[in-house]
Amino acid sequence: MRLDIIAALPRYFDSVFDNAIYRRATESGLFRVEVHDLRDFGKGTYRQIDDYAYGGSAGMVLMAEPLSACIENLKSQRSYDDIIYLSPDGEVFNQHLANRLSLCQNLLLICGHYKGIDQRIRDLYVTREISIGDYVLSGGEIAAAVLTDAVLRLIPGVMGDESSALTDSHQDGLLSPPVYTRPAEFKGLKVPEVLLGGNDKAIREWLHEQALERTRERRPDLWEQWGDG
Amino acid sequence: MRLDIIAALPRYFDSVFDNAIYRRATESGLFRVEVHDLRDFGKGTYRQIDDYAYGGSAGMVLMAEPLSACIENLKSQRSYDDIIYLSPDGEVFNQHLANRLSLCQNLLLICGHYKGIDQRIRDLYVTREISIGDYVLSGGEIAAAVLTDAVLRLIPGVMGDESSALTDSHQDGLLSPPVYTRPAEFKGLKVPEVLLGGNDKAIREWLHEQALERTRERRPDLWEQWGDG
Repeated sequence: MRLDIIAALPRYFDSVFDNAIYRRATESGLFRVEVHDLRDFGKGTYRQIDDYAYGGSAGMVLMAEPLSACIENLKSQRSYDDIIYLSPDGEVFNQHLANRLSLCQNLLLICGHYKGIDQRIRDLYVTREISIGDYVLSGGEIAAAVLTDAVLRLIPGVMGDESSALTDSHQDGLLSPPVYTRPAEFKGLKVPEVLLGGNDKAIREWLHEQALERTRERRPDLWEQWGDG
Repeated sequence: MRLDIIAALPRYFDSVFDNAIYRRATESGLFRVEVHDLRDFGKGTYRQIDDYAYGGSAGMVLMAEPLSACIENLKSQRSYDDIIYLSPDGEVFNQHLANRLSLCQNLLLICGHYKGIDQRIRDLYVTREISIGDYVLSGGEIAAAVLTDAVLRLIPGVMGDESSALTDSHQDGLLSPPVYTRPAEFKGLKVPEVLLGGNDKAIREWLHEQALERTRERRPDLWEQWGDG
């Protein structure tokens, strides 16, 4: 998969993409991420990329022209499965959508900043709008980092142990059961007996029961969907 | 506000916290963030922080002892309003919770990694578990970056223009209306007439109607809650 990111703060990603998972995925050829500085397409001597909103609302808006120039430059080089705008009013991101996006060849992510981007960019180019949750961030860079990470780890071969991703929370519609590691007793709290024994069937049953219980208690909304599924 | 973050990948935050909002908030004394390397509390010569999960599940678990040592070290220096564990099975983060957390003095965030942290740390120390959304990330560092950003920008004085944050999506339970900036016409698409005129009342009404329409169309779940509110 190739992922292009258009950002007003491209340096945001410097340390974010500098870790073992990204390095391994990139070196193996399974994944490539390129961050594009919107200011390279800015207007005039000052490379302007934002301006005041029409209508007198507080806050700045990313202008249509630099975004359009950057998007058209990238589109002329390859075709994108989706051009995604990250925005709190988009479709709410979840594991199901992460799974679907992990099957794409080329994705283009547009990071908003300040009050967002000129609506006409959304009308002209954007094929999918995604929100990572019902809260507001100072910029879309953070949301792009979240989406990239969630999708990257689902690409086959990227994670060291593939079965690991399949037992994650939300992958089967349930929350994960509790996990324990050594020592068997810590500050008076013991690891549940069943996990210390070698009875695989009993362990699987216990883990499944814990996942059901945790989901029912903490997320009745997920629990109802799971019961229907 | 002071925010302490315990992380297995402390360098993740290097470029994340290196921007104008963080610098201004830090220099003004309104905000301070400290990232603590869990490995400084690791066990033995290799500073071990993770181990295999009991029960034979795939994936590694952050051990109780290093986390406990780091948490107790921080707790001995100040009292925390909340000790937060970021995990996909926590309470789902939203703007309401961001507002509440922005009123705290001291917060401690624990970033999980791999399959999570030993359950006994959650039982012994954690006062609040938060999920930034229904998807899985390779580590809690990303979730901590999201929570920090959403909370930081709500602290009075941090954003350049405070009225800006109040007109964001989700702050009033509605999605934001579309935004436009110059030029008035771009690739044949015109900015709505009302925004170009100087009639403040007409502009406010139009923006509110657009917010209502967008919320009703895109997020019937929010729309129902808003109608009840």
